[in-house]
Amino acid sequence: MKKHILVIPGDGIGPEVTTWGKAVLEEIAAQYNHEFTFDEALMGHVAIEATGNPLPDETLEKAKASDAILFGAVGHAKYDNDPSAKVRPEQGLLKIRKELGLYANLRPIMLFDELLDASSLKPEVLRGTDILFFRELTGDVYFGEKKRSEDRNTASDLMIYHRYEVERIAKKAFEAAQVRGKRLCSVDKANVLEASRLWREVVQELAKQYPDVETEHMFIDNAAMQLVKNPKKFDVVLTANLFGDILTDEASQIAGSMGMLASASIGDGTGFFEPIHGSAHDIAGQDKANPLASILSVALMLEISFGLKEEAKKITDAIDKTLKDGYRTGDIADANTDKAKILGTQAMGQKVLEYLK
Amino acid sequence: MKKHILVIPGDGIGPEVTTWGKAVLEEIAAQYNHEFTFDEALMGHVAIEATGNPLPDETLEKAKASDAILFGAVGHAKYDNDPSAKVRPEQGLLKIRKELGLYANLRPIMLFDELLDASSLKPEVLRGTDILFFRELTGDVYFGEKKRSEDRNTASDLMIYHRYEVERIAKKAFEAAQVRGKRLCSVDKANVLEASRLWREVVQELAKQYPDVETEHMFIDNAAMQLVKNPKKFDVVLTANLFGDILTDEASQIAGSMGMLASASIGDGTGFFEPIHGSAHDIAGQDKANPLASILSVALMLEISFGLKEEAKKITDAIDKTLKDGYRTGDIADANTDKAKILGTQAMGQKVLEYLK
Ligand SMILES: CC(C)[C@H](C(=O)O)[C@@H](O)C(=O)O
Ligand SMILES: CC(C)[C@H](C(=O)O)[C@@H](O)C(=O)O
Repeated sequence: MKKHILVIPGDGIGPEVTTWGKAVLEEIAAQYNHEFTFDEALMGHVAIEATGNPLPDETLEKAKASDAILFGAVGHAKYDNDPSAKVRPEQGLLKIRKELGLYANLRPIMLFDELLDASSLKPEVLRGTDILFFRELTGDVYFGEKKRSEDRNTASDLMIYHRYEVERIAKKAFEAAQVRGKRLCSVDKANVLEASRLWREVVQELAKQYPDVETEHMFIDNAAMQLVKNPKKFDVVLTANLFGDILTDEASQIAGSMGMLASASIGDGTGFFEPIHGSAHDIAGQDKANPLASILSVALMLEISFGLKEEAKKITDAIDKTLKDGYRTGDIADANTDKAKILGTQAMGQKVLEYLK
Repeated sequence: MKKHILVIPGDGIGPEVTTWGKAVLEEIAAQYNHEFTFDEALMGHVAIEATGNPLPDETLEKAKASDAILFGAVGHAKYDNDPSAKVRPEQGLLKIRKELGLYANLRPIMLFDELLDASSLKPEVLRGTDILFFRELTGDVYFGEKKRSEDRNTASDLMIYHRYEVERIAKKAFEAAQVRGKRLCSVDKANVLEASRLWREVVQELAKQYPDVETEHMFIDNAAMQLVKNPKKFDVVLTANLFGDILTDEASQIAGSMGMLASASIGDGTGFFEPIHGSAHDIAGQDKANPLASILSVALMLEISFGLKEEAKKITDAIDKTLKDGYRTGDIADANTDKAKILGTQAMGQKVLEYLK
């Protein structure tokens, strides 16, 4: 198989982790006789520094011309502490999601048995958890009109949804539920928000077309609670952009660490694969970041964009073995971890490559 | 002390639990020679059934004329599954918050040592946690303009904040931090939302007036994660209406159950005290609800609205003893609980009264 992949390392720990995602792709290509070609492009703070634009036209063109995109992270503390900054790294990410029509963000909560103790949740609460989140990614208060009054004392963002936006992601979520546990939980705040009431209406209507799927509706506050109380009760979770952002970060603690979670953004064209974690500037450049989320993103790419299931499984198996043999990055180490087996980013990436061979 | 208290039982388990809140107030009045007089009023589904209005004028008048309000819960599944319903129980609650100017919702996360095992989080993660949430309660996307297009295919809610709204609650939160752990974490989504950027600006400015308080800003997605990962790191958490709704429900799992958390809504006038839990229709009328959150709401009322610290402490001590002696409602029972000591709502309320004597 011939594929052209664009790598967008981005900011902070982005470059450190995508290096290993790419290395794994190269290894898989060699083993299975695929021809993967690569290009690289700028986004986020690094793009602002180089071009003044968080998403340079060149990056967008390369993205559209590629078969899949491997992305790292964007963000920088400099902008976080300056609420009045006009140009921000995150705008690059939001714009590429919109431009590529990446309306569905899939975030599987993968549980590696070896990491049950790395979580702050009790192992018996976690064991057996298997959730696939469908987060809407190109609508909601993220993209609604933003306003600041002239005296700067009033600020607003429009939380808005159109029927077709809910329909297209809901369909994908129902289809996924059909081939998984056949349960779908749609999360909203329909007791307060009009956008949520539209959301619920659409999901209720669609549910009739999927009688084999058990559909439930839950308020976001309750969902945030149930996710900690009893994560096993969820199979497919379907939710809006903002609620999905919050719930999936929360759910990362089920997997022990943000450093273990990958995501796939899909929609009209090229798929976009990235870790859930952010740029983590506090540990950038220190060889501390966990490369597994980037490597797992690559597994998602192979499976979802290229239909290469065997290759994808080979990767998750290699990670499984790495963990079984006791190797950990700092974020997933616990009291039982052999100190000698706590690895940096480089050594961990290298280990996975070895196990792949 | 002479005080007039309005009881608004509301829907579902509301009446069952407020009964015990009121009984505890009566017991305290008798013991300390206070004169508490009571009245009752309708809100929510029960008010719609009786008057067509989720917040009848009479209830609002009585509320304004009282020294404090003890509230149960509102909500009914009937409306949840009907996104097109025009009149809803929750409108009563939102309207009374707005009308009484209850802009600050205080939600203390109280940890009873006896309940460490009732949580899905590991005891070592929980132990020592002590968080006080300040949730803004009369602004945000809850109260911004709601719209539905004529073809009903587009729906929106305006997420909006004014400087004064952020200022007044932030001041209260900083003042609370000064007499607590001297740390304040303000939660927003300033990397995406304009309303959050205003929020952050205001908190940053105010922080200069409280140099003794260590101020931190955190994105909501990260906060939802940190709350599970390491709840001990938080002291005072200040956040907007929607984010506060989500985070405090999530945080309820720190205390073992929603049935253990009380909240105080304060602002321009009469204080309003309620459990965090909702109407829980699935267990209503079955003598299963945990009355402790309502009883703890009464303790907050005595302390915050009436300045009666000793009386408030007497109540939390009584609950502490009840739990120490092994008594539990179903929601906080765990594998170690003596089956004979699992009590219904009535028996649990009665127990606390006995320990109060
Ligand atoms: C960086 C930020 C804009 C982004 C989001 O909120 O969508 C991130 O948190 C994510 O989840 O991908
Ligand atoms: C019932 C509902 C409108 C309410 C809210 O969202 O504020 C509730 O969840 C709460 O937290 O008090």
